[in-house]
Amino acid sequence: MGGTVKLAVIPGDGIGPEVVGEALKVLGAVTAGGDTVFEQTPFSLGAARYLETGDVLTDGDLDAIKEHDAILLGAVGGVPGDPRLAGANIERGLLLKLRFELDHYVNLRPSVLHPGVVSPLANPGEVDFIVVREGTEGPYVGNGGAIRVGTPAEVANEVSVNTAYGVERVVRYAFAAANARPRKKLTLVHKTNVLVFAGSLWKRTVDAVASEYSDVTVDYLHVDAATIFLVTDPARFDVIVTDNLFGDILTDLAGAISGGIGLAASGNINPDGRFPSMFEPVHGSAPDIAGKGIADPTAAILSVALLLDHLGLAEASAKVSRAVAADIAERGGATRTTSEVGDAIAARIGA
Amino acid sequence: MGGTVKLAVIPGDGIGPEVVGEALKVLGAVTAGGDTVFEQTPFSLGAARYLETGDVLTDGDLDAIKEHDAILLGAVGGVPGDPRLAGANIERGLLLKLRFELDHYVNLRPSVLHPGVVSPLANPGEVDFIVVREGTEGPYVGNGGAIRVGTPAEVANEVSVNTAYGVERVVRYAFAAANARPRKKLTLVHKTNVLVFAGSLWKRTVDAVASEYSDVTVDYLHVDAATIFLVTDPARFDVIVTDNLFGDILTDLAGAISGGIGLAASGNINPDGRFPSMFEPVHGSAPDIAGKGIADPTAAILSVALLLDHLGLAEASAKVSRAVAADIAERGGATRTTSEVGDAIAARIGA
Ligand SMILES: CC(C)[C@H](C(=O)O)[C@@H](O)C(=O)O
Ligand SMILES: CC(C)[C@H](C(=O)O)[C@@H](O)C(=O)O
Repeated sequence: MGGTVKLAVIPGDGIGPEVVGEALKVLGAVTAGGDTVFEQTPFSLGAARYLETGDVLTDGDLDAIKEHDAILLGAVGGVPGDPRLAGANIERGLLLKLRFELDHYVNLRPSVLHPGVVSPLANPGEVDFIVVREGTEGPYVGNGGAIRVGTPAEVANEVSVNTAYGVERVVRYAFAAANARPRKKLTLVHKTNVLVFAGSLWKRTVDAVASEYSDVTVDYLHVDAATIFLVTDPARFDVIVTDNLFGDILTDLAGAISGGIGLAASGNINPDGRFPSMFEPVHGSAPDIAGKGIADPTAAILSVALLLDHLGLAEASAKVSRAVAADIAERGGATRTTSEVGDAIAARIGA
Repeated sequence: MGGTVKLAVIPGDGIGPEVVGEALKVLGAVTAGGDTVFEQTPFSLGAARYLETGDVLTDGDLDAIKEHDAILLGAVGGVPGDPRLAGANIERGLLLKLRFELDHYVNLRPSVLHPGVVSPLANPGEVDFIVVREGTEGPYVGNGGAIRVGTPAEVANEVSVNTAYGVERVVRYAFAAANARPRKKLTLVHKTNVLVFAGSLWKRTVDAVASEYSDVTVDYLHVDAATIFLVTDPARFDVIVTDNLFGDILTDLAGAISGGIGLAASGNINPDGRFPSMFEPVHGSAPDIAGKGIADPTAAILSVALLLDHLGLAEASAKVSRAVAADIAERGGATRTTSEVGDAIAARIGA
């Protein structure tokens, strides 16, 4: 597959630009001399842009981004507690707005404990699963409100919205993903005994789609029990499908047990291809270590592997994953700078 | 303090009656010859009762329970997937109904990694914290609904309700608890960047009450980040205050890292004393091992320690806790029956 891929690049804040730099270095190495040309457009978005212009994400930004085939994002968010950011919710106004406007209904988060990586678990076993987190519904829809704010009679509500349309499409994606993996196992995580309406919709949808995938083994866990298994027997998981909020919680925990969110990549995917999908490390902007050249770019580089795979460049994707795995295996305890890690991985690809 | 304590006992289903039997054995040992007499009333509630009578919790049951000073509950819930229970949601209709009707706005869940207990974490450090989980609001209120059920146009909503009244009282309890502990540290866990209305209410309430507790150090974590710290640095926690759903998730994870929910006790507390508080192990009815006499009654026995403390019987409570800690320390890998564990702990108290 050849041609030109129009890539929107959002380096963002803090360590974002540093890790994106290395991710692009690796992208350059793996596509060098190939048929596919990546044409990059940088977008200045995030806390820094907000502080400069007062804009979080304008309609113009959004329209321009939509003209692209895919997005690579570093991390967005300013220094916690910065009074100048008090009015802005960069996460909601930028990150979540992109996920919603670009209909990223699959938030794909693989968890692999690579050989050589230290887990906080004493006996992690083989950790190799993916979380398919719904990305456009649940309590993330912004459907809350409050009355009598600041008085003793205040009531603040948040509404989790779940639709057959939204649940079915992400469940179908998860079944297809499970069916394509050797173990072919799907675990629905929810809280059906308490969130009975949403839970019932999720459960019935999984049961219905399951009938089309006779090779896929299906089980169910309440979200509280799922956190227990993630620390006592993570090897039991293959594909997890869950709602937006439970997915947020489980993937941070999953990242932690597989060596830290410094290694966790994610894809915000619009499988229909109507809008560009967005690839980003799970970690944040980490202002405390920004500008020092010490951030670990591995998660950003693994996000490039997800991006390549999404674009159908399976071979290039596998090259990046293998180079990262090889680098991780030989890392040991050595401290390297951000660019040393990027250089090492890019060199392996070139070799 | 002398007198009579009217104790409602709900053994429940599965291993519930077995572990409650040992808990009562220990209660008997620690109160033997003392000033306080425990007058017990057994209540037959749970899946077994439902299958027999069709009732989950009648108004009569509820009125009778309210006549008591405290409740000891084993575990409720039938065999998962039992078709005869398909229509009944025992958790909602019994456990949650009791918590709501008896205004158990504090769900208190201590996590202690006792010497001698194996944690799934490689380097757990000193684990000794309590989670103060709100018990009467959040997405647990049963305020959901669905339209067009079973059609492609289905919408299923769940509403999280949070009030200044409800948040303030549990936050006050948490501050008082933190203030009474040596480290005096309180961590609010929420998801303020996404659940902005509920999050803002929780955050403002904590900030306001903090001004009355100058000795208490306060910090904040998003729920996703909190799960990371629970596996990478649980020693950082002293008192966590959080909403009903986040508390449900975090306390199962907390139980797992401190040696399993077989050791985790909880109190559903109405601090006003208007209604009886209810003490229960965090684990469920575990039908798979029921009737074999092999369930670990430790969590139920530790729930008795919480119950005694709640009733102002601090010395008796400490005796139970110490006996449990000593038993755990000497347990090693030996397999003991349910009653052997109860006997051993009761014997230590008598000695
Ligand atoms: C920053 C925040 C809004 C976001 C989320 O909750 O989805 C983050 O935690 C994530 O998981 O990507
Ligand atoms: C059984 C269920 C309704 C309950 C809850 O969600 O509160 C349980 O998980 C718990 O933590 O006590």
